[in-house]
Amino acid sequence: MRIKVMQDIMAANDMIARENRRIFDQHGVFVVNLMSSPGAGKTTLLERTLAALKDEFAMAVIEGDIQGQLDAERIGRYGVPVLQINTGGECHLDANMIRNALDRLDLAGRELLIIENVGNLVCPAEFKVGEDRKVMILSVPEGDDKPFKYPLMFMKSQAMVVNKIDLLGMVDFDVEKVEQAVLALNPKMAIFRLSCKTGEGVEAWLDWLRGQVRCGGKGERRSKGAEEQKR
Amino acid sequence: MRIKVMQDIMAANDMIARENRRIFDQHGVFVVNLMSSPGAGKTTLLERTLAALKDEFAMAVIEGDIQGQLDAERIGRYGVPVLQINTGGECHLDANMIRNALDRLDLAGRELLIIENVGNLVCPAEFKVGEDRKVMILSVPEGDDKPFKYPLMFMKSQAMVVNKIDLLGMVDFDVEKVEQAVLALNPKMAIFRLSCKTGEGVEAWLDWLRGQVRCGGKGERRSKGAEEQKR
Repeated sequence: MRIKVMQDIMAANDMIARENRRIFDQHGVFVVNLMSSPGAGKTTLLERTLAALKDEFAMAVIEGDIQGQLDAERIGRYGVPVLQINTGGECHLDANMIRNALDRLDLAGRELLIIENVGNLVCPAEFKVGEDRKVMILSVPEGDDKPFKYPLMFMKSQAMVVNKIDLLGMVDFDVEKVEQAVLALNPKMAIFRLSCKTGEGVEAWLDWLRGQVRCGGKGERRSKGAEEQKR
Repeated sequence: MRIKVMQDIMAANDMIARENRRIFDQHGVFVVNLMSSPGAGKTTLLERTLAALKDEFAMAVIEGDIQGQLDAERIGRYGVPVLQINTGGECHLDANMIRNALDRLDLAGRELLIIENVGNLVCPAEFKVGEDRKVMILSVPEGDDKPFKYPLMFMKSQAMVVNKIDLLGMVDFDVEKVEQAVLALNPKMAIFRLSCKTGEGVEAWLDWLRGQVRCGGKGERRSKGAEEQKR
């Protein structure tokens, strides 16, 4: 029974995610679904990204939280459209929440939408929302055993940010070991070591994101992104 | 429909949790459900606790992970019975998983069972497993906004360990602000600041746990625990 219910939920979610994707494509907006454990640095990475790219691309943000407006308030300072979704207890965003949010967020002219998911290394990986890319963050203090314990997130993402590298040496974290484990699960993963606090390594992440938006984003260049998504 | 399904799932879970609790009470074993985000330090706190208390109390451990045996292997070194549950994708332990595990874990003579839940600051808070106490860990690098964003875990727990205080000053984390926020949500929360790495503050946690086991645990002393549980 439980399996049947879950299959129904996932099938319904995937259908709505395809509808979201169609809406994103119509507007020519490239969409990133940003995921991690609580406190790994999603909002801080988003702030770094907005500060660097908001004059380069027309950006928008959807903030997903169980409750509260804290992240939307932080992001609001950057002068881009931001919409807060409160899941009211749900541990992840799903396609229907995003679909409903799109009624309140004007995508006209937007080029890059970043969706910050609820802090959770497990469930968000299961729910497509219509994104072009799934990006995950693993932070150094979380430890280097996470790919072994939460493999789905590492398998489903196209890029991984290893954040808080300023804390390397202060906690037990073997970055080479982590990257080997991740590449064994997902050989195509793009990996970026950085510190949102100090700024070290952030430029490589920004370059990758620029390339994704330019090549996988608008108009005719969209076709490449669509192909990648199918693989 | 979704709400009805969730209500059915929670009602079934609570029924099995009560059955688990009856089994724990029959054996006179005090049960802690240990929860946190991935990488906050559940296994390390467990190791500190086992090292200090395993000769004082007859202990046992249930390890919950989505997959793998890493934590059971770490805990196995301490010479106490340990059972690994793999949830196979589920983001939390539920009462039925614990019920099934009890067929394979001999509780005779055990005084303290610690159940390490899947790393997740959201869903485990919703699922009783028959425990006497819910204990949560918040680690300093996760940031001080977590009580505002994930309130249920803070509301449901009887004790909170603030772990990795050796990193205070290296990350943005106002420990007073966190404790005020937590006590606003849950005025009875017992709070322990400690570092599993350096050992600082661990003794106060151990003293609390000793008191809980002695006063809420076996035989006639059980009645007090049962009363507390009802409140």
